[in-house]
Amino acid sequence: MTVTDIARRTYDHGWRLDPIVRSLLDTDFYKLLMLQMIWRLHRDVSATFTLINRTKSVRLAEVIDEAALRDQLDHARSLRFTNKELIWLAGNSFYGKARMFEPDFIAWLADFRLPDYDLRVMDGQFELHFEGHWTHTTMWEIPALAIVNELRSRALLRGRGRFELDILYARAKAKLWDKVERLRALPDLVLSDFGTRRRHGFLWQRWCVEALKEGLGDRFIGSSNVLIAMDADLEAIGTNAHELPMVLAALAEDDAGVAAAPYRVLEEWQANYDGNLLIALPDAFGTQSFLAHAPEWLADWTGFRPDSMPPIEAGEQIIAWWQAHGRDPRTKRLIFSDGMDVDEIERVYHHFHGRVRMSFGWGTNLTNDFRGCDPRGASLDPISIVAKVTSANGRPAVKLSDNPEKATGDPAEIERYLRIFGGKGRSAQAVEV
Amino acid sequence: MTVTDIARRTYDHGWRLDPIVRSLLDTDFYKLLMLQMIWRLHRDVSATFTLINRTKSVRLAEVIDEAALRDQLDHARSLRFTNKELIWLAGNSFYGKARMFEPDFIAWLADFRLPDYDLRVMDGQFELHFEGHWTHTTMWEIPALAIVNELRSRALLRGRGRFELDILYARAKAKLWDKVERLRALPDLVLSDFGTRRRHGFLWQRWCVEALKEGLGDRFIGSSNVLIAMDADLEAIGTNAHELPMVLAALAEDDAGVAAAPYRVLEEWQANYDGNLLIALPDAFGTQSFLAHAPEWLADWTGFRPDSMPPIEAGEQIIAWWQAHGRDPRTKRLIFSDGMDVDEIERVYHHFHGRVRMSFGWGTNLTNDFRGCDPRGASLDPISIVAKVTSANGRPAVKLSDNPEKATGDPAEIERYLRIFGGKGRSAQAVEV
Repeated sequence: MTVTDIARRTYDHGWRLDPIVRSLLDTDFYKLLMLQMIWRLHRDVSATFTLINRTKSVRLAEVIDEAALRDQLDHARSLRFTNKELIWLAGNSFYGKARMFEPDFIAWLADFRLPDYDLRVMDGQFELHFEGHWTHTTMWEIPALAIVNELRSRALLRGRGRFELDILYARAKAKLWDKVERLRALPDLVLSDFGTRRRHGFLWQRWCVEALKEGLGDRFIGSSNVLIAMDADLEAIGTNAHELPMVLAALAEDDAGVAAAPYRVLEEWQANYDGNLLIALPDAFGTQSFLAHAPEWLADWTGFRPDSMPPIEAGEQIIAWWQAHGRDPRTKRLIFSDGMDVDEIERVYHHFHGRVRMSFGWGTNLTNDFRGCDPRGASLDPISIVAKVTSANGRPAVKLSDNPEKATGDPAEIERYLRIFGGKGRSAQAVEV
Repeated sequence: MTVTDIARRTYDHGWRLDPIVRSLLDTDFYKLLMLQMIWRLHRDVSATFTLINRTKSVRLAEVIDEAALRDQLDHARSLRFTNKELIWLAGNSFYGKARMFEPDFIAWLADFRLPDYDLRVMDGQFELHFEGHWTHTTMWEIPALAIVNELRSRALLRGRGRFELDILYARAKAKLWDKVERLRALPDLVLSDFGTRRRHGFLWQRWCVEALKEGLGDRFIGSSNVLIAMDADLEAIGTNAHELPMVLAALAEDDAGVAAAPYRVLEEWQANYDGNLLIALPDAFGTQSFLAHAPEWLADWTGFRPDSMPPIEAGEQIIAWWQAHGRDPRTKRLIFSDGMDVDEIERVYHHFHGRVRMSFGWGTNLTNDFRGCDPRGASLDPISIVAKVTSANGRPAVKLSDNPEKATGDPAEIERYLRIFGGKGRSAQAVEV
């Protein structure tokens, strides 16, 4: 007997939208940690975030329909934190700590909604800006990226037959599981999912997380995605991002203030958080300069997350810095999360094994690796797309990075920052994801 | 909103059996062609069929629960041809010919049911015999094999998690599709599914057929499985099997009658069928002997299906025979169906391309290739299991084959047949599937 759920079928006929982002918790955990600090200390700052597609060869506005993008952004703006979500944020322990989020902040979140957006098409690309209070615009970063990436996946796969898609996903699953089996060979691996922003799609990210949970057991420590962490009873993973030093540097009155901004961020951070959240991101304006001028007390922090220098080089510089400050690197932690894939994870793991504690944040190559999976042979390679803060209170924001390919901001302002921070140790690397 | 079909869930809770064979058409087409001839010419002959597991290392009765096997066999015995099935058999064209099955035969099928079985366990193996009229016992071959093979698959995968199974099937799908992509490179390929008997499971066979249809287009000419051919609107493929010469030889009164049996079968066959059904199976008692004594008129047949000699060797012997009889092999057809997989298909295809028309019947390595697919690393290698006629009217039936590993029958009787047919050109090959 053939059974069809007629109500379901009829409902499906009436679909207007298959929403990509369906919850405000479908974001990275570090956004919430940063948000609470911004809400506490910088509530009146305005910040503009801008979507930047670094893969210029992909003309996104020719792939994705502008109206479909607006529909998805509008749908995200209609979302509110639900009661269940707020209760979970208030009641759950994060990094072993209860009451990470204070009651007033939770109460403030209850009224939160994503602010308006400004979308135009220019030369085959979307110009997408989010203007307003930093407390609001910051929350667009992840949903905007997830929406654009998933709309691109959908566009590339539009019109495919049911069977082709079956093959595509079978291959992608087999491919990921082969990676998982390789990672299993690393007994002390500590790995988490960092793949929300550039995922193929939400359901695929959820499947990838299930795969890591099934395949790596305790070695898989959690997901950066708060919704997935909540639903799957995993740890929500994450600390902070470049936007903090970028905004504080932009707000600085003079060059000295710019130079001091990266360390002021750390002071603010450790006044808000402690323990395993004391992870410094050293590369906003160049790692070498950052370490050279870093205060002694930073050596007491848990570790660093190098994010744009080749990982072994960055790790060696940081280890040397700890040793110069009389600390034993074996008690410290390095978190590697810049475009990692299995080859690189294995290489870095073996290089540093026994010398320092390591964690890996596995992003795009976890949740969006469909290379070679399409039965038609089309390229589903992920693109390198980011949403960066571009100004704060009307002043231009800059990121230098260790990799000039990842620098953002006005060229004249970049020159100024290079004068302030020196630019030593930066070197160009191809950015793939 | 989570939607669960509560009626479905409640029904599922009450499941007693997940039947493996759900239709009498879930069999190979050649069984129906042979059945009509047996029904016309040998209605009173008794024949015993016996299940033989050539892979002795797999102790089937320790893998499969006897009660579960009985439940499945009993369920198959409860089946009748449905009206729709009989109408389709009567109304469909097979091999371009309408009314392949005569009305009286269709009327006879309407009352058909599978006869009783005799099941015992001996030394870790099942002893499974089907005794009775040849018109009935012959129909057990395919369902019995399909049931045992699928029960084994189920037993091997019992207790696996949902996720492990997802990986297993993803890998198997990716593996099959890689094979399909290789086969696509053969422009004149003619291939059909012969995988019913040793399939992993019915649903998997159906998926494999879909894959071939999707991937090979016109180069995929159909399925031996009648039910799948009907449902998917494909050609039902098949001609005849060893049981015909085996039974006629067993019934022969003397050695001369045994020696003549293979050719008498061909006379009977061409009195019943014509055109593309005129495919001779030369190896029941050795191909070399068969060709040496074959009548001149056999050179007018469409082709041969070598089934136990290495395919290139068999093809060369047959081509030489056609040439010796003044026929152009380029107008003739060879059907290769003995344990084929992609490597062998490619090799044979390239060897004979342009010299003879070829078709490939792809069986076990199509519908039951899970080698290397299990995330736990367990062996899901198919086993070599057959159901052979072992006696007719109480006399022992024998198959010599070109490969002594595939010979069946009483050893003394095998010796007698070897004296009659000579046994030249036989050579042992490992039997994998």
